[in-house]
Amino acid sequence: MTTTAYRVTGMTCGHCVAAVSDEISKLTGVDDVRVGLAAGGESTVTVTSRAPLPEAAVRDAVDEAGYNLVGQTS
Amino acid sequence: MTTTAYRVTGMTCGHCVAAVSDEISKLTGVDDVRVGLAAGGESTVTVTSRAPLPEAAVRDAVDEAGYNLVGQTS
Repeated sequence: MTTTAYRVTGMTCGHCVAAVSDEISKLTGVDDVRVGLAAGGESTVTVTSRAPLPEAAVRDAVDEAGYNLVGQTS
Repeated sequence: MTTTAYRVTGMTCGHCVAAVSDEISKLTGVDDVRVGLAAGGESTVTVTSRAPLPEAAVRDAVDEAGYNLVGQTS
C-alpha cells in the first residue's frame, strides 16, 4: 500500500469533501481517501492505493470534482 | 403566484445551493427556487409558489438540507 497526501484548494463543505472523495475513489487501485477540510484554504486529501498513483490522474480527478490540486504535502 | 425571500445561513458552495433548492422544490406548490449565495454569510433564497407557504415547512426543508433559515428578508 502507498499513502500520499495532496493539497487541494476550493473545498468549503462536506459536499465538496464527498465530491472529491467520490472522484478519487474511482481511480484504479485506490483503497481509501481521507479529507482534512480547511474551508477556503488548503485542504489535505490523503489517498491510500495498492500502487503509487500518477499525480496527473489524481489531479484530473480533483479537477473533475471542480477543485484544484496544488501539489503533494511536503 | 406568491414570491417570498428567506435568509439562510451555512451555505458555502454550489453543492449547498443545490441541496437547499432540491429540498424546497419538493414542497407542494413550489414553482421556482432561486438562491443568491453569500458564502459563509446570509444567503437569500427566493421561493415562488402557487399559494403562500407555511414558514415552518420552508424552515424544515432548509434544515433537512443541513442549513439554517434565519427568517424572511425585510
